[in-house]
Amino acid sequence: MQTLKDLLIEELRDTYSSETQIVDGLEEMAEAATSPNLKLAFQTHLKETQNQIERLKQAFTHLGADPEGNTCEATEGLIAEAQEVMDEELSDELLDVALVLAAQKVEHYEIASYGGLKTIAQECGETEVATLLGQTLEEEKATDEKLTRLAETEINKAAVSVSKAA
Amino acid sequence: MQTLKDLLIEELRDTYSSETQIVDGLEEMAEAATSPNLKLAFQTHLKETQNQIERLKQAFTHLGADPEGNTCEATEGLIAEAQEVMDEELSDELLDVALVLAAQKVEHYEIASYGGLKTIAQECGETEVATLLGQTLEEEKATDEKLTRLAETEINKAAVSVSKAA
Repeated sequence: MQTLKDLLIEELRDTYSSETQIVDGLEEMAEAATSPNLKLAFQTHLKETQNQIERLKQAFTHLGADPEGNTCEATEGLIAEAQEVMDEELSDELLDVALVLAAQKVEHYEIASYGGLKTIAQECGETEVATLLGQTLEEEKATDEKLTRLAETEINKAAVSVSKAA
Repeated sequence: MQTLKDLLIEELRDTYSSETQIVDGLEEMAEAATSPNLKLAFQTHLKETQNQIERLKQAFTHLGADPEGNTCEATEGLIAEAQEVMDEELSDELLDVALVLAAQKVEHYEIASYGGLKTIAQECGETEVATLLGQTLEEEKATDEKLTRLAETEINKAAVSVSKAA
């Protein structure tokens, strides 16, 4: 690896691996979620993620590189954490709280990745790539905010109610 | 796990494991960084992280629980990623760019954790715990912003210069 563009490509391969793992993770999380609103939020973000993978493929075409060849270990850990939550025997209400927490960790991983790489793409003069990464960055931020609102207005309150009854 | 407070304790154990792993990671990253400003940023955040661990211990005292007993797999993945960067044979300038990216992923993991858990502590009526988590949350956000500024004003530009020369 010699240039900043080489590093950008290598890091984008990590992001590509991350997004493909997240598709599988989100499918399971959408199935596991018990609140209809949370289920819908995961399903909506699943479709967005599939579109984000297409954007990454476009970015690789611009860069003249192949998206394959890297496995994102951090995402493996993040998904393993979400998996653990689903394997525990939690009440519906606590499961939903734990799923939101796990999903927001994934969102923030992506916000950090796309934020940093968008800036690097700009510095490399790869304007189209920076635009594609910027579009996904805004979607990730919006999903994170949507999950925060859902937790505060519904999911956490439901868990407080059952905790008082326990 | 029966109540939202039980879930809060379990999630805080994950955060405690995360912070203890980050101390080791930051020590290595501070040593590896070649920009004096980046080295200083990592050293400063290392001290903050040690203080954040003390705050978590205080939170556990308030909750009447033990901080040990959970291993944060996501942080293991995040630190493994930073380790990979340090093991690659990169030029000083590219190494610093990659270290900033790795560090911001760690910061965002913590922002997601502390953000979600602060809200849950409030919902559980654990006001002192929420205050402690809120203090750390602000430090994590400030560190993330500091790293963004450092990348934009210095680290990325240095990497662009050597990339043009390569």
